Amino acid sequence: MPGGESDARAPHPALSLDEAVHQKTRLALLTLLDEAGQADFAYLKRTLDLTDGNLGRHIDVLTTQGLVETTKEFIGRRPRTWVTITRHGEQALAAEMEVLATLLDRFRNNGTTTRTE
Amino acid sequence: MPGGESDARAPHPALSLDEAVHQKTRLALLTLLDEAGQADFAYLKRTLDLTDGNLGRHIDVLTTQGLVETTKEFIGRRPRTWVTITRHGEQALAAEMEVLATLLDRFRNNGTTTRTE
Repeated sequence: MPGGESDARAPHPALSLDEAVHQKTRLALLTLLDEAGQADFAYLKRTLDLTDGNLGRHIDVLTTQGLVETTKEFIGRRPRTWVTITRHGEQALAAEMEVLATLLDRFRNNGTTTRTE
Repeated sequence: MPGGESDARAPHPALSLDEAVHQKTRLALLTLLDEAGQADFAYLKRTLDLTDGNLGRHIDVLTTQGLVETTKEFIGRRPRTWVTITRHGEQALAAEMEVLATLLDRFRNNGTTTRTE
């Protein structure tokens, strides 16, 4: 690993994770939406096995952070809510994935030493 | 990606993440302890820039789940608390990393399709 001893003083990569993206249900939502571009509420609810309330709360967090947008359309009298990942959401997910890749590399290259003060 | 359309019905890999391990501070703690085998409270506190209370709460969660163990020793009259990752903690971290690798693979192999019900 480049840096050797000096990296013991660098901030741990996991500290830069954003809980808005990292929390497991929201990470699932963002990766699904990144794959799909957009998906409707019913699909997300069924695929992630969430209640209306639980999915709604996570969509709210993501919307407040500007990571997704929702639009409602009517098929006849039946409403359908579409959820779309924003450009900012794509960037935030890419940043999360970059940190996860760093953590994975560290884990896979793990040696055994004892750290103390 | 193997499975094609049928994987739309498989549980999303992120759903199998364990929040005890996945939460970012605990993920940082477990990866540090996996690298170090053990570390003392002061080192973890400083490295992860946590307060005593915050670190203590996360160590409590990890201890309750059997992922780490703590032991106290005295250097003269000065107490030092050592935190050690357990075998179960190593296995749980390895399981987390396996899911993260799956998410990363999906992200990197991402095509563009629209998912609906």
